[in-house]
Amino acid sequence: EVTLHWLYVAVMFGSAVAFMVMSRDPKTVPQYKYLIHIMVVVWSGLAYSALAMGQGTTEVAGDTVMYARYIDWVVTTPLLLLSLTLTGKYTIQMHGPVTAGLMGSQVIMIVTGLVAELSTGFAKWYWYIAGCIALLVVLWLFWGPLLEKAKSQDKAIEDVYRKSATYLTVQWLAYPLVWLIGTQGLGLLNTTATTTLFILLPIISKAGFGFFNLMLLRNLPDSVK
Amino acid sequence: EVTLHWLYVAVMFGSAVAFMVMSRDPKTVPQYKYLIHIMVVVWSGLAYSALAMGQGTTEVAGDTVMYARYIDWVVTTPLLLLSLTLTGKYTIQMHGPVTAGLMGSQVIMIVTGLVAELSTGFAKWYWYIAGCIALLVVLWLFWGPLLEKAKSQDKAIEDVYRKSATYLTVQWLAYPLVWLIGTQGLGLLNTTATTTLFILLPIISKAGFGFFNLMLLRNLPDSVK
Amino acid sequence: EVTLHWLYVAVMFGSAVAFMVMSRDPKTVPQYKYLIHIMVVVWSGLAYSALAMGQGTTEVAGDTVMYARYIDWVVTTPLLLLSLTLTGKYTIQMHGPVTAGLMGSQVIMIVTGLVAELSTGFAKWYWYIAGCIALLVVLWLFWGPLLEKAKSQDKAIEDVYRKSATYLTVQWLAYPLVWLIGTQGLGLLNTTATTTLFILLPIISKAGFGFFNLMLLRNLPDSVK
Ligand SMILES: CC1=C(/C=C/C(C)=C/C=C/C(C)=C/C=O)C(C)(C)CCC1
Ligand SMILES: CC1=C(/C=C/C(C)=C/C=C/C(C)=C/C=O)C(C)(C)CCC1
Ligand SMILES: CC1=C(/C=C/C(C)=C/C=C/C(C)=C/C=O)C(C)(C)CCC1
Repeated sequence: EVTLHWLYVAVMFGSAVAFMVMSRDPKTVPQYKYLIHIMVVVWSGLAYSALAMGQGTTEVAGDTVMYARYIDWVVTTPLLLLSLTLTGKYTIQMHGPVTAGLMGSQVIMIVTGLVAELSTGFAKWYWYIAGCIALLVVLWLFWGPLLEKAKSQDKAIEDVYRKSATYLTVQWLAYPLVWLIGTQGLGLLNTTATTTLFILLPIISKAGFGFFNLMLLRNLPDSVK
Repeated sequence: EVTLHWLYVAVMFGSAVAFMVMSRDPKTVPQYKYLIHIMVVVWSGLAYSALAMGQGTTEVAGDTVMYARYIDWVVTTPLLLLSLTLTGKYTIQMHGPVTAGLMGSQVIMIVTGLVAELSTGFAKWYWYIAGCIALLVVLWLFWGPLLEKAKSQDKAIEDVYRKSATYLTVQWLAYPLVWLIGTQGLGLLNTTATTTLFILLPIISKAGFGFFNLMLLRNLPDSVK
Repeated sequence: EVTLHWLYVAVMFGSAVAFMVMSRDPKTVPQYKYLIHIMVVVWSGLAYSALAMGQGTTEVAGDTVMYARYIDWVVTTPLLLLSLTLTGKYTIQMHGPVTAGLMGSQVIMIVTGLVAELSTGFAKWYWYIAGCIALLVVLWLFWGPLLEKAKSQDKAIEDVYRKSATYLTVQWLAYPLVWLIGTQGLGLLNTTATTTLFILLPIISKAGFGFFNLMLLRNLPDSVK
């Protein structure tokens, strides 16, 4: 698992370099989009190198809790959502209640997830369900108000938004599922399987989504940017 | 006390639903005002459900410190102040040094309060007094620069501002008072009394203020909004 | 050392009062510049009064770690950079990727520094080097994109920017150096020497920089403000 964690770190830092190179030739995609994705992979790489060095874990009722994951998520997931928001409002102004609502629900989701992982018995499931409700709010914002904004723009931008939102929706549903069947939940998977999944998933949702979203935006016809 | 805490949680989540319903028919009050008050009661409801399940407490010198209260306050009090600021600058742009100063002082006030609660002897009172000074700064901003802004607008808006600021001033003074006579301060009240007060007060200052402020704004004549 | 810490607190709170007095006669320097520097010294004064009262420290492998320093830095260094950014874009709009990049790298630098201080062996140096890389990013932003912005303005403003950035660059290089030779690093200095340096340095970089930067801006000819 140590090797896997270091591999993850290498992928993240490698992606950071790739995003930097891409940002030199931004193709009219705004610099802050690149910046967001660089931050996401750098922060996550740092958090997982703590895990690789045996740091960022604690014991709860005999189980190892890797709280470094939550330190990762609490920063990177709002950034990923911010990237999606910027996609949805590509040529519109970004501030507003939808962005604020997304960030708020997202932070609540991660914090309740961490508390769930640190709790046992009834409290564990109380917090897990609270996190899932926050997730539903996030998904509702994806497909309700934010989609509206995207629709008010050029068809090509709406299209990029729909693809990006689908990508994130699938990812966002996978995490609580892995959590549920993993060691911290029902314990259907063992530690190695859980750890491996929590290494594969974020590669797809962080580095993968970065490339996916940036590529789509870079390939937009110049007329709509 | 467990029952009281769950009751509090129910009131908060109930208020959240009520605010959501109100936001469906916003009466030209901006959506972010509703969002702020929803966030306040949801976050507080979550923090107090930790207390209800016996979480979020620690021992200092033999006394139980309910630090979950501070996790609540550090998020909700800046949001409440933000709501007040938006009232004072109702039709003006919100950014600016006054808002930043309010947020900064408010965070300092809560953090010093938490450190006070975790300290003993001289240090306890040093931090308590630091918190009170931060409170004075907050109140000065209420009744100085922010009132100026409110005055520069329609008389009806100034009026809403004055009422809302009075409401918050009374509340903001009550907390350090309860703290002082409660178990964490001079110990004139016992644990049950302190806990009960810290359940009643936030219902008034969170759910209560939300309804109070939103109602006043909703009833403004359309001409000034 | 207790006396030294209290002395530091006195200098900080004294500077806060001085900045407040200066802000009464702002000489067209915007109020938020004063506010930023007041926040910096107040927050730092509070953090060091914890140290003066023997709080904010923990033991790692037999050594005392004064983590209160990092609580100080994580708030004050972004604020100082914000002040510099505002200098560089004096009459231009402040938002944008450069400010965000600076804040992000700065927070990473302080957090990795704290983790380094709490780690031992290989991990300690991994985190220290990560922090130094973040520092290089910060300095690159100082002398690359931000200098560009400053250049796009009046020569007098560019000049203030250059002086302020030089001041901060020297300071920013001194901290990791003291860290390296101090007790938490190679241990060439003893505790008293390290503590004293970490009291002298921040007086120069917080109170000192505040006066330096504000004075330069106040003395700008009215025509360029
Ligand atoms: C709903 C829910 C969860 C969802 C977590 C998610 C959706 C995490 C996403 C992380 C990402 C995308 C990281 C970066 O790639 C938890 C906290 C597991 C448990 C509580 C309920
Ligand atoms: C001045 C002061 C305090 C004030 C606390 C306040 C004013 C809390 C307000 C909380 C609210 C309004 C919560 C949500 O409803 C403390 C921290 C007790 C102790 C330190 C001194
Ligand atoms: C690069 C680096 C560091 C730099 C710290 C700095 C630059 C601190 C500046 C503090 C200031 C300016 C405080 C307020 O005056 C650490 C964290 C020591 C260690 C890790 C590597």
